[in-house]
Amino acid sequence: MLRVTIWNENVHERREPSVKRIYPDGMHAPIADGLRRELGDKTSIRVATLADPEHGLTDGVLAETDVLTWWGHAAHDEVSDEVVDRVHARVLAGMGIVVLHSGHKSKIFMRLMGTTCNLRWRSDPGGEREMVWTVNPGHPIASGIPQPIVIPHQEMYGEVFDVPPPDELVFISSFEGGEVFRSGCCYTRGSGRVVYFSPGDQEYPVYHQPEVQRVIANSVRWCGDVSTANDSPIKKLANSPRNWYLNPE
Amino acid sequence: MLRVTIWNENVHERREPSVKRIYPDGMHAPIADGLRRELGDKTSIRVATLADPEHGLTDGVLAETDVLTWWGHAAHDEVSDEVVDRVHARVLAGMGIVVLHSGHKSKIFMRLMGTTCNLRWRSDPGGEREMVWTVNPGHPIASGIPQPIVIPHQEMYGEVFDVPPPDELVFISSFEGGEVFRSGCCYTRGSGRVVYFSPGDQEYPVYHQPEVQRVIANSVRWCGDVSTANDSPIKKLANSPRNWYLNPE
Amino acid sequence: MLRVTIWNENVHERREPSVKRIYPDGMHAPIADGLRRELGDKTSIRVATLADPEHGLTDGVLAETDVLTWWGHAAHDEVSDEVVDRVHARVLAGMGIVVLHSGHKSKIFMRLMGTTCNLRWRSDPGGEREMVWTVNPGHPIASGIPQPIVIPHQEMYGEVFDVPPPDELVFISSFEGGEVFRSGCCYTRGSGRVVYFSPGDQEYPVYHQPEVQRVIANSVRWCGDVSTANDSPIKKLANSPRNWYLNPE
Amino acid sequence: MLRVTIWNENVHERREPSVKRIYPDGMHAPIADGLRRELGDKTSIRVATLADPEHGLTDGVLAETDVLTWWGHAAHDEVSDEVVDRVHARVLAGMGIVVLHSGHKSKIFMRLMGTTCNLRWRSDPGGEREMVWTVNPGHPIASGIPQPIVIPHQEMYGEVFDVPPPDELVFISSFEGGEVFRSGCCYTRGSGRVVYFSPGDQEYPVYHQPEVQRVIANSVRWCGDVSTANDSPIKKLANSPRNWYLNPE
Repeated sequence: MLRVTIWNENVHERREPSVKRIYPDGMHAPIADGLRRELGDKTSIRVATLADPEHGLTDGVLAETDVLTWWGHAAHDEVSDEVVDRVHARVLAGMGIVVLHSGHKSKIFMRLMGTTCNLRWRSDPGGEREMVWTVNPGHPIASGIPQPIVIPHQEMYGEVFDVPPPDELVFISSFEGGEVFRSGCCYTRGSGRVVYFSPGDQEYPVYHQPEVQRVIANSVRWCGDVSTANDSPIKKLANSPRNWYLNPE
Repeated sequence: MLRVTIWNENVHERREPSVKRIYPDGMHAPIADGLRRELGDKTSIRVATLADPEHGLTDGVLAETDVLTWWGHAAHDEVSDEVVDRVHARVLAGMGIVVLHSGHKSKIFMRLMGTTCNLRWRSDPGGEREMVWTVNPGHPIASGIPQPIVIPHQEMYGEVFDVPPPDELVFISSFEGGEVFRSGCCYTRGSGRVVYFSPGDQEYPVYHQPEVQRVIANSVRWCGDVSTANDSPIKKLANSPRNWYLNPE
Repeated sequence: MLRVTIWNENVHERREPSVKRIYPDGMHAPIADGLRRELGDKTSIRVATLADPEHGLTDGVLAETDVLTWWGHAAHDEVSDEVVDRVHARVLAGMGIVVLHSGHKSKIFMRLMGTTCNLRWRSDPGGEREMVWTVNPGHPIASGIPQPIVIPHQEMYGEVFDVPPPDELVFISSFEGGEVFRSGCCYTRGSGRVVYFSPGDQEYPVYHQPEVQRVIANSVRWCGDVSTANDSPIKKLANSPRNWYLNPE
Repeated sequence: MLRVTIWNENVHERREPSVKRIYPDGMHAPIADGLRRELGDKTSIRVATLADPEHGLTDGVLAETDVLTWWGHAAHDEVSDEVVDRVHARVLAGMGIVVLHSGHKSKIFMRLMGTTCNLRWRSDPGGEREMVWTVNPGHPIASGIPQPIVIPHQEMYGEVFDVPPPDELVFISSFEGGEVFRSGCCYTRGSGRVVYFSPGDQEYPVYHQPEVQRVIANSVRWCGDVSTANDSPIKKLANSPRNWYLNPE
């Protein structure tokens, strides 16, 4: 059983009619639908949002989460540092995290990357076409994905994307203006896996698109496939943050 | 169902009493036992050896193989180029390959790596202690592996190991003489995954050691977890070796 | 003093008027001009072509070459295997190689990569616009390069490009059709460095474009900056191809 | 002219007689001597310490620093967050940083890595022998380095070392107890380069060893060889930390 927690800031959906129209139940709803369709019974899904106590990410919830997905944008600064510390420690100890779209500027993603995570950006009314190309076709997160995915309307995210060189680069997007973007990046940090996947925006129905849902589901599955050894040394390391060193047994 | 073919040169075992004593049924026997114990019913296992027609690696067998393991040493040159071409094409099209120990100088491994795959070597009577350390503890091939694995008797494989920088480095070994070796290296080539794992020798009972068997089983499982899309563009590319280019549809 | 050998197949230029018009002195001429302008007195330049004895790549020439650039297309198969073996051994021993455009299907590049090096391709009359984006702005081969380089007329090279994941990815291109391509890829193989840079075609004046010349010059300089230790173990390894192993001293 | 700033915590040397005996002028003194010997006239050297105003790392000093070396241990927590922010921004904008030994737990290194940077550790009286093996012999930081470097007395740093997979791994160490450690790790972060090199301790005369000095000098030179383009987009990005996005011109 893979235990997934979908974290959604859930701010735009509540206050902006244009967003509410596209995502009446919040962006987490179609993300959850996609996970259910793609991963089926082997997965349990929980939703947590900014407004929940401790943003819904208590020690208890995190202890029961194998993979966390993260969408945020308007309220990155309102996420408490304590929760960020907690999520960070859990990722290093083996919990996967799938960071979506504007989550590139979330505290947790910048903390994990160690860089600004800035990027080139343009948003024209109505957006522009994004094409998402697979460059690593054997990678599990590309499983069953057409070449390319075409997203009719999107804002533009372009290079330079200030992240560390991905440990595995799976998708590269192009935009109508000719820009390119590393839109599917995989990382290992500690015992945990990190995926950044850029398609998805509150203004466009991107999360209703089945191929996009499938990439997210694939990413969740891949992030959940880490060493299950209880005696993983990195887990001991991560559990003793005060100690610089782990002494040999 | 994961379909595994264990390829074993099977030369030392037949002609050298010292090897026959350790591996009376061939080195493939304990490798198969380990796969059965670790992967269970979800796996079907076939054995192929150098002496079989086409070395047991016909088009038909390869078409029904998801992951191939490879052990060779004394007779690398006797493997036909035609079979190497065939295995190479299948790896690029998505079949996994787990190359073991002296397989570092097999034609197929050198072909996939593009380098000499040479290494530093010493063999003293009785061997010496090898310690295999996990450096990427969340990686699936390190699942359930103690830190370190201790192999009491081994020949020494040391750096410089002339391979491309691994896409993922999981294990590093040390030897009594103080040498180090990148003993668990993961690569993606085309749609296929490649693992090189160095422990294992015909003169020592390394393949009877459960932790070693587990790493091989983990590697087989990891190599088998690639994108299953039938329409993978790389598969089309690999299937048309005469054409330099794949024209867009 | 950096010693560069520009290798050019030099076939299209001699037999096709449309190419001769753009490159009357061969494609090697503007490449050499660019190197001279960018690298100046610190560089000596030699030209070798397919028609020369041993393709101009004798043991003597290679021994005096720090970095080789490679352009081929129509006559890849006419390059002798003996010369390919020789170049391969020299690269592993520390000589840099900069592979250009259609050189992706040269014997030497496929040998070094271990994959098909196939790609997606389209050529419309008049070509289409390519934009070359820097994704690793601190990398030496991106020094002084505008963001993006715009090449007005090009044939399309697109993903999937069947090469190993680059050790460092520096440029990604987009095309008018929306395709993307990893157009600047860096590799280490043995003690040598490899750059693949895709812009450049016999039908378009790409090699007259100063930014393209600058990337090539930067690549030559970067490939030439390898460890100069005479006692490099990999050099010993590469010099003894018959021996699988280097025994410890 | 390469402008280097050697940063040294300089605490142990002032208060512990055992350290003062080995490093009477501070650990920065032999590090500076080595840089002068190896890099000569092309390099200017400045020293800054914890006790200096703003730890000697004012905006002005950093603006005139191409590469910073960092040694800290007892007083990591006393380094002000403001200075860490400043150094971090400068690295992402292209300044190199060479982090030494116990600097693995410095605020700046953990910030850049995004992980705990913990490791396995043992310190026996008198230390033990460390052997530093080159695994990437063509890399500029391995230039002129013997295989292996033998350090007679050291404390043990072992795996798991909780850092991101190095972009380039150059050195691996072994210790008498059989442990291994990735002792020479190279990273690109933003436009800047990062080297972590573990040999060196306040209790042993490691920084007086010429091979160790040479690795540090090589690392400084390598970290200083980044794109010099004034118009690097990442520099603009790094200079505008408040803006999430860089709008296209």
